[in-house]
Amino acid sequence: MTSEFEMDARLDADTFPVAQWPLCDVRLMNDAQYPWLILVPRVAGARELYDLSEVQRRQLDLESILLSRTLMATFKGDKLNVAALGNVVSQLHIHHVVRFECDPSWPAPVWGRLPPQAMSDDLKSERLAKLASILAPDWAALSSNAVLD
Amino acid sequence: MTSEFEMDARLDADTFPVAQWPLCDVRLMNDAQYPWLILVPRVAGARELYDLSEVQRRQLDLESILLSRTLMATFKGDKLNVAALGNVVSQLHIHHVVRFECDPSWPAPVWGRLPPQAMSDDLKSERLAKLASILAPDWAALSSNAVLD
Repeated sequence: MTSEFEMDARLDADTFPVAQWPLCDVRLMNDAQYPWLILVPRVAGARELYDLSEVQRRQLDLESILLSRTLMATFKGDKLNVAALGNVVSQLHIHHVVRFECDPSWPAPVWGRLPPQAMSDDLKSERLAKLASILAPDWAALSSNAVLD
Repeated sequence: MTSEFEMDARLDADTFPVAQWPLCDVRLMNDAQYPWLILVPRVAGARELYDLSEVQRRQLDLESILLSRTLMATFKGDKLNVAALGNVVSQLHIHHVVRFECDPSWPAPVWGRLPPQAMSDDLKSERLAKLASILAPDWAALSSNAVLD
């Protein structure tokens, strides 16, 4: 893992950039059916969560929890699905999918179920605007237990 | 979350107990098609990862990493799928599924894909024997970075 990190071409094609956090790139999946974001740790060669160091995993936890809470507070989902799969794209990436009991795949997982439906420009703008609060979080404040727990 | 933790009846029916770790019950999914274990944090009322405290999440990380590395070292999978879904059983539980490029669902995720195939007694015994090393880990040693990273 000494080479430089490079975003996998398929991940890049399937998503839009939202923010660069200390460890991860935050990307919005181009699928109108669900509010769906992924975290991609900028760690060259990482495929599994255990390929990250403990320090990196603590930062990932912080970023994942912030994203999860923001998504559920923003979109008012019934359940959040958080998953590191990687059977198709092996570069480590962690899905965060807001699920609704009325969404087209419920209660099945979203992967490989229905073809993705590209977002309209309006929907993309609307989702990105709703997520504006996560563009530049105050990480120093967030890493204190008082805020996160 | 002041009431006592109780294992969800469906999780209990679908899995076999393997070990009790400091935070989680370790359970073996009764499905012959994949080596598939789940971690169930014994935290009453928890549905999402962010329902755990930071201290609990650090312990979950330790337990998940140990389980992940053990599973991949033991079963020599091509990829590990780690996921907290909960659309059917909302009690927080984290799937760890060893995937093979030759398994019946590859590269799709396993959930809702094929009906589970109950393990024979022999297969169950074989899987449990292979996992004997995780029955009583030395958590003190494992929590040092030198071992895990």
